Amino acid sequence: MANFKGHALPGSFFLIVGLWWSVKYPLKYFHQKVKNSQLNHNYPRLEIIEAGVRTLFSIIGILAEQFVPDGPHLHLYSEDKWVKTMNWQHSTMYLFFAASGITDLLTYLVTYVPLGVDRLMMAVAAFTEGFLFYYHVHNRPPLDQHIHSLLLFAVFGGAISVSLEVILRDNIVLELFRTSLIILQGTWFWQIGFVLFPPFGTPEWDQKDHENIMFITMCYCWHYLAAICIVAINYSLVYCLLTRLKRYRNGEVIGIQKLKSGHTCHTALLDGSDEE
Amino acid sequence: MANFKGHALPGSFFLIVGLWWSVKYPLKYFHQKVKNSQLNHNYPRLEIIEAGVRTLFSIIGILAEQFVPDGPHLHLYSEDKWVKTMNWQHSTMYLFFAASGITDLLTYLVTYVPLGVDRLMMAVAAFTEGFLFYYHVHNRPPLDQHIHSLLLFAVFGGAISVSLEVILRDNIVLELFRTSLIILQGTWFWQIGFVLFPPFGTPEWDQKDHENIMFITMCYCWHYLAAICIVAINYSLVYCLLTRLKRYRNGEVIGIQKLKSGHTCHTALLDGSDEE
Amino acid sequence: MANFKGHALPGSFFLIVGLWWSVKYPLKYFHQKVKNSQLNHNYPRLEIIEAGVRTLFSIIGILAEQFVPDGPHLHLYSEDKWVKTMNWQHSTMYLFFAASGITDLLTYLVTYVPLGVDRLMMAVAAFTEGFLFYYHVHNRPPLDQHIHSLLLFAVFGGAISVSLEVILRDNIVLELFRTSLIILQGTWFWQIGFVLFPPFGTPEWDQKDHENIMFITMCYCWHYLAAICIVAINYSLVYCLLTRLKRYRNGEVIGIQKLKSGHTCHTALLDGSDEE
Amino acid sequence: MANFKGHALPGSFFLIVGLWWSVKYPLKYFHQKVKNSQLNHNYPRLEIIEAGVRTLFSIIGILAEQFVPDGPHLHLYSEDKWVKTMNWQHSTMYLFFAASGITDLLTYLVTYVPLGVDRLMMAVAAFTEGFLFYYHVHNRPPLDQHIHSLLLFAVFGGAISVSLEVILRDNIVLELFRTSLIILQGTWFWQIGFVLFPPFGTPEWDQKDHENIMFITMCYCWHYLAAICIVAINYSLVYCLLTRLKRYRNGEVIGIQKLKSGHTCHTALLDGSDEE
Repeated sequence: MANFKGHALPGSFFLIVGLWWSVKYPLKYFHQKVKNSQLNHNYPRLEIIEAGVRTLFSIIGILAEQFVPDGPHLHLYSEDKWVKTMNWQHSTMYLFFAASGITDLLTYLVTYVPLGVDRLMMAVAAFTEGFLFYYHVHNRPPLDQHIHSLLLFAVFGGAISVSLEVILRDNIVLELFRTSLIILQGTWFWQIGFVLFPPFGTPEWDQKDHENIMFITMCYCWHYLAAICIVAINYSLVYCLLTRLKRYRNGEVIGIQKLKSGHTCHTALLDGSDEE
Repeated sequence: MANFKGHALPGSFFLIVGLWWSVKYPLKYFHQKVKNSQLNHNYPRLEIIEAGVRTLFSIIGILAEQFVPDGPHLHLYSEDKWVKTMNWQHSTMYLFFAASGITDLLTYLVTYVPLGVDRLMMAVAAFTEGFLFYYHVHNRPPLDQHIHSLLLFAVFGGAISVSLEVILRDNIVLELFRTSLIILQGTWFWQIGFVLFPPFGTPEWDQKDHENIMFITMCYCWHYLAAICIVAINYSLVYCLLTRLKRYRNGEVIGIQKLKSGHTCHTALLDGSDEE
Repeated sequence: MANFKGHALPGSFFLIVGLWWSVKYPLKYFHQKVKNSQLNHNYPRLEIIEAGVRTLFSIIGILAEQFVPDGPHLHLYSEDKWVKTMNWQHSTMYLFFAASGITDLLTYLVTYVPLGVDRLMMAVAAFTEGFLFYYHVHNRPPLDQHIHSLLLFAVFGGAISVSLEVILRDNIVLELFRTSLIILQGTWFWQIGFVLFPPFGTPEWDQKDHENIMFITMCYCWHYLAAICIVAINYSLVYCLLTRLKRYRNGEVIGIQKLKSGHTCHTALLDGSDEE
Repeated sequence: MANFKGHALPGSFFLIVGLWWSVKYPLKYFHQKVKNSQLNHNYPRLEIIEAGVRTLFSIIGILAEQFVPDGPHLHLYSEDKWVKTMNWQHSTMYLFFAASGITDLLTYLVTYVPLGVDRLMMAVAAFTEGFLFYYHVHNRPPLDQHIHSLLLFAVFGGAISVSLEVILRDNIVLELFRTSLIILQGTWFWQIGFVLFPPFGTPEWDQKDHENIMFITMCYCWHYLAAICIVAINYSLVYCLLTRLKRYRNGEVIGIQKLKSGHTCHTALLDGSDEE
């Protein structure tokens, strides 16, 4: 879908996942330090819901690419030529993200799936996205080609980072790095939309101007710095929230303790006070 | 052998190895959890047979490349020019796979060969295949070049993955990844045969059409998804089979137990019930 | 700032950081072996000061790029074209180094920041520098392009090395390697300045002569050898200094011991004599 | 030195080092399993001699490149142009190998040099060789360019392998891999000499013939297979020799044992019989 909406849709998709991850991973990280934390018990359920939503998003993406008015409507070959290979390629990308979502689902639902397969499949999905994009952008104006190829740094960076997680699972630094790269992808898709298909009647960009390419390259770095800031802010917010919550609950517990017996206090200690 | 059979032969070779691995590695993985399992005792023998078969396949490949009617018949240089370098290159590829097979044999037969050498040699064989292919496809039509170069992703991906196994031996995720890539190679060789040398009188593909290249790129991703599904299905089948077998044997054991003494039961527990 | 000063400024910046690191890391390495060493207690404070100074340097760099007489003065777009993208790109590079400095600050000041984030951010800063440089040097004479692209080996080498430190933190070999690469960057910036903008009225270099490119490539290797020698010498100097200091303090202590009680001696042993 | 001798000299240099390593590393590997082995005590001395010889070789290389009749005789710049940059580049390569040799010397002689620095310096030397070669071969006939660039696979492969040894020190698989690559380099230098400067009056190769390039690519693979075989044979020979030696010494000891007391036997057990 070579228009503004066709870039805003995947952009929003990546942005929502990225923002959610920038909350989820800090939450998991801070709770891992606390044994018997409630989140630790509910964590697999959380992952299952996330994987389900991600699979659903991807299927919506496939359907959108296939059944938009000028889409291929599941026709692959007719009248001696391929039908809308562009839409089919986008569908393929979504298909791999769906496969990654399903693998995540299975990892948490089925006990005999080996850990790490989910991360491998996510790396494969990211690599496939980059792989298709790489062969996607030939024969286009320089700016179009450049702005799309910049995306590859985020995509392949993400693929490498997730591959490492196969071995170094639950490493918070790698998880935050991955999160920042997926937010970058999200915002950059929006940027591509704004540059190639100006939505509010703003003038077209000169797609052959070297200065534009210079600016876009730099702009990509700014996007990444913004993505890092978003991750850092959400990480801090989660920490502050958890600390407040702990204090509040501890306060409550002390109140209860005064009225009742020491038994309640013991439970509370197990719940929240190993933290720090 | 630039014809349909010349691509179907290595394709089948890789496909058989890949399908066998997609059964072998899950088997090994589930049995490793059970101490004193019968498979654990017979496992080296299994590996020796596999390595022998792989070496045999490779030697057949070398002989086929050399002694087909239009092959070089072991002549390398005659009348001031090289004889059939194409066939010699293919022979070299098979030669490295034979060397890898022999190294595997030695690793399990000879005690002083250090573990990891077999994986290194397999990585070298895969790398050499990719290396020769890379210089192989120059000066050909775009589609021919592209369809062969796509193979390099599977080949080098496999080489990197096996190299990692030198250090991270017996990692089920890496083993399944390698298996999926070798199945991909197998099916892709068949695909190349069908595209470049249509066997059933179907019309030739236009080797310069950009749309064909776009489709082939995407088709490659679908092949990989199919390869992943095959690995996943075989993995699950092996699990189900083993679970049934265990239940059946446990049931039988309980029957025997009723008739005989508790001694048999103890053996049965060691055999199969540490699993899960 | 395409002049001699514009290359001498970042060159000095990297050189100072490199020289300081070539003292800091050996100091840390030798003190880590001594428990209760004074440096171990003050080490976080040292890192905070360094991070602060690095952030300050970067901000000076940004301001210099923006407010030099022919700079953009924070104007990004005016009269339908981008203002001084070159200066903006340099500012962006400094901005990432500032972000890396701030992350270092936070790692040592705020307890809940996970270790490794500082190294990741430093790797991102180095990668961004290389990334912008890569797209920076198109459309220039061969020598200009080549001399700048050589810098990329140091920059990306550094980025890879620092990335490894996310996992292998406090590895002295990686730290010294990083130090040597940053000194190389420093001296090479000066070299670029001397070659492209000869400051003392020496004749211009022929930017299209292949022999010049051959020499510059070789010269780059010599710079690196010099950088390694600097690191090796500083490493040895730090070792000698610490050994002397220990002997001196031990001697002093023995003198005090004779006058006073054994209590002082015990403290001194804890301070410095576990070393070697 | 663009002649046969100029390629035979470094070829022999690498070949001697490779053959020595193919004996040294198996020796070290088999002796590491035996505590109190004599070799374990003398091992540092062995490494020091090797490092010394390697440094000497490199200095001979530098002197040869500088003081051959048509060499630069240490003149770098005269009459407004660079003198013999080719010889200077070769000298630089040897210089880095000398630096690597000196680092090895220091690692075993000076106690405070951190382990791993020797491997890092060897990786840097290999990388520099590849780096200079890469920019070396521009503007030459296709076969000349290709035959030199093939060398880069061995060089960079070696650089990556040695870098890994910084972290995974004393890994026999990595050491044997490195050994095979250095033997490959040695034999390939001889091959380059034979192809580009046929020494025995054989006809010149057509440097633009694609078939020649195809053959040379394949020939490179055969060289590597030969290198692997050499390493494997030497590894086995060392094992056989050590086993025989052990039996012989054990036999001798049993003879002594019969005459003397059990005290001698105990020493002999510590010396050689923990082996497997």
